[in-house]
Amino acid sequence: MRNFLFGLMALAFASSANAQPQPAAAVAPIPAEVQRTLDRLSASAFETNRAYDIVESLVTEIGPRMAGSEAEARARDWAVAMLREQRFSNIRIEPFTLGFWQATREEAAVVTPSPQRMVIAALGGSPATPEGGLEAEIVRFPDLAALEAATPGSLNGRIVFIDERMQRTQDGSGYGAAVAKRGRCAPLAQARGAVACLIRSVGTDPHRFAHQGGNTRQADGAALPAAALSPADADLLARLVARGPTRVRLDIQVDARENAQSGNVIAEIRGRERPEEIVLLVAHLDSWDHGQGAIDDGAGVAIVTAAARLIRDLPRRPRRTIRVLLAGAEETGIHGANAYARAHAAETHIVAAESDFGAARIYRLRTRFAEPALPYARAMQRALAPLGVIPGDNAANGGPDLTPLRAAGVPVVELSQDGWDYFDYHHTPDDTLDKIEPAALQQNVAAYAVFAYLAAEMDWDFRAPSQ
Amino acid sequence: MRNFLFGLMALAFASSANAQPQPAAAVAPIPAEVQRTLDRLSASAFETNRAYDIVESLVTEIGPRMAGSEAEARARDWAVAMLREQRFSNIRIEPFTLGFWQATREEAAVVTPSPQRMVIAALGGSPATPEGGLEAEIVRFPDLAALEAATPGSLNGRIVFIDERMQRTQDGSGYGAAVAKRGRCAPLAQARGAVACLIRSVGTDPHRFAHQGGNTRQADGAALPAAALSPADADLLARLVARGPTRVRLDIQVDARENAQSGNVIAEIRGRERPEEIVLLVAHLDSWDHGQGAIDDGAGVAIVTAAARLIRDLPRRPRRTIRVLLAGAEETGIHGANAYARAHAAETHIVAAESDFGAARIYRLRTRFAEPALPYARAMQRALAPLGVIPGDNAANGGPDLTPLRAAGVPVVELSQDGWDYFDYHHTPDDTLDKIEPAALQQNVAAYAVFAYLAAEMDWDFRAPSQ
Repeated sequence: MRNFLFGLMALAFASSANAQPQPAAAVAPIPAEVQRTLDRLSASAFETNRAYDIVESLVTEIGPRMAGSEAEARARDWAVAMLREQRFSNIRIEPFTLGFWQATREEAAVVTPSPQRMVIAALGGSPATPEGGLEAEIVRFPDLAALEAATPGSLNGRIVFIDERMQRTQDGSGYGAAVAKRGRCAPLAQARGAVACLIRSVGTDPHRFAHQGGNTRQADGAALPAAALSPADADLLARLVARGPTRVRLDIQVDARENAQSGNVIAEIRGRERPEEIVLLVAHLDSWDHGQGAIDDGAGVAIVTAAARLIRDLPRRPRRTIRVLLAGAEETGIHGANAYARAHAAETHIVAAESDFGAARIYRLRTRFAEPALPYARAMQRALAPLGVIPGDNAANGGPDLTPLRAAGVPVVELSQDGWDYFDYHHTPDDTLDKIEPAALQQNVAAYAVFAYLAAEMDWDFRAPSQ
Repeated sequence: MRNFLFGLMALAFASSANAQPQPAAAVAPIPAEVQRTLDRLSASAFETNRAYDIVESLVTEIGPRMAGSEAEARARDWAVAMLREQRFSNIRIEPFTLGFWQATREEAAVVTPSPQRMVIAALGGSPATPEGGLEAEIVRFPDLAALEAATPGSLNGRIVFIDERMQRTQDGSGYGAAVAKRGRCAPLAQARGAVACLIRSVGTDPHRFAHQGGNTRQADGAALPAAALSPADADLLARLVARGPTRVRLDIQVDARENAQSGNVIAEIRGRERPEEIVLLVAHLDSWDHGQGAIDDGAGVAIVTAAARLIRDLPRRPRRTIRVLLAGAEETGIHGANAYARAHAAETHIVAAESDFGAARIYRLRTRFAEPALPYARAMQRALAPLGVIPGDNAANGGPDLTPLRAAGVPVVELSQDGWDYFDYHHTPDDTLDKIEPAALQQNVAAYAVFAYLAAEMDWDFRAPSQ
């Protein structure tokens, strides 16, 4: 696109919140006909509850679906049928294999001084304890840094307990700060002689749920049973340890095996002029098993599917291909996204976006485009403004399943959802359908439809302007 | 008391909210010296966190404590030591026996069409299912009345599911309306040929917890496995049943036996002039076992104890005896209160109050006094007004543990706590210490101290004026 609009209007869409006058930023123009289509797409998103119906169907007819499980296989079949019903093209499953892990028992209890059960979640990849569990004294660390400072051998035979809290933030940045202990507790504790690792759940809620999640022990060569505690049980351990010696029994049993089956489900709206150029919309099909996988990531599956369906229903397909990727096995290590990136490395991905941050409204559009392509980012932000979406920066990460594509240089956008309460439910039994507000899903669908149509209809190159 | 104050002031404390001028209601006068003591008691309640420290100690050092369990026995020993520390008199345990019941397994899962685990709580007194559980098709009823209308034999071999919801109310009245299904589901379902009974939890929260609670099957001669479902799982069953046949597996195993040991713990501030006249403050020591028993009823134990302690610390004991009753085995059938009422039937109970509705602020004082004693009720309401307590009616129930005393004619008061969120946590794993706000406990302590001191220092007779 050769012509940029320079003018006062552009100021409103600059990514800085600074109130001082600044040089006007370039905004790529959107032809009137395209704008009319965007308006139609946006309006039609609010006329149905299609996205809600999709996630309702998934969590009701399939339920939780651990990576590599039989339930995830049923979810793939469900997805193929659902995508056919939405009348997409080129629907297929691309299978891959991965290591399977699922806890079959996850129990913990205070043994002394006050026998009582605690609520835990075994961390993904945790090895089993001995049959019947292990029992040891707790050593509490206020944070990960304190555990790092402990000397080798100082924790011999103990259970490490990291009591670090997560901060609530709108953009989810509290998660990045808090999640390090989930992966690093086991290797650090094992290196110092401990027999198991407990962490305060990586979450923001005050409820008696433990938050599931992966840990990276395998990469670090550690093999220590590890679990997350509910907030109330972390509080309890902290109070007990402050009083004196506290012994805990931990019993984790697991079903772990190699060469389990997973797969990515793919569907397309084939581009009418440049079908080899792909606008990729991603969500993931798998979930942890304590909850229903409603907000993580049934909502994302529903949002990207319903958005693409609105474009499918237009009288004329956009120039480029819109591809929906419902990835398998995100939770246990973005296996599906990696398999996709390997299999599709030779294709031209124009831009990619992932919906994997719950079901709340989108409040911001961030991008990761080449600098000369920023006028396209501003045009997208302008197009999304009527939906209550504000401009963000050009440092988008895009989401976990975009990691391999981003590394390969594919431009990404992030339609940032409000994450204020996302980590109240994330990876807990409380990730259930009732946490989804249908009206918020409609807004997500509208935003994804606007973004995807713009990216697929215009000839914009987000790596650099195609002038 | 012979003299009543008639005057305009009294209008402000009349129990009617009607704004029209009315005949002034009589208010018993409070001598200035007594008022000074009330002011001192009230102020001192806000100077310590004694009540919070007591409940913190109970839930940390004992934890949950099912009626008749070893944990409840430890709670009695804890209570005796704690009451000694508070320097009360005549501290003792009054033992009694009861039938013990505790679930050792409580699992349910959808078998078809979408295999997935559900979150349940076996209802107190439920018999076990066969080893390995039972499996049957669900029949949903929107409410208890619909089940009542089903004909005998029409539910042969099915699992009944009552999907009735509870309404949120400040005064807890929603509970009375909703709880009927908990007791009546099993006998009604059994009489119609069903093999088990599931109910939507009697609670107001949207979280993935099932609410425990007793059921009355034994009284009705029924013996049907019965459990409560979390809201999300009730929603799930409703959606599945709407789609077609839905089979569920239910596995409940229990530890049930006769002649278990429980007991009431009693402590006193002996009256300086009329020690045989008793002002009774009640809470219960036992709890369900999914939660910590923090708001139900560790908070009550803490409130009545800390209030009495403030009176104990006065330079001069009140005229009448203040007795603290920490009852055993309330949850499984007010066994402790019944044992107390039998053992102490010959004593003179002037008035009784129970704290068993959580840890939120008191907003109202209701009474159940003889009509001629209403000036005393108004005097109490007036004394409590500075704490934000409004006048209530004279139809107080007083709480479950007051049932036998109330039936025997003992006057009761109800220091009504705000119950808006009580049934979010009630009988769930989420009944944990963090749900208690220390400042709200202080207000409760102040109100109980004011009430108890007034009742014990004045010569008021709540059955009739002693003129």
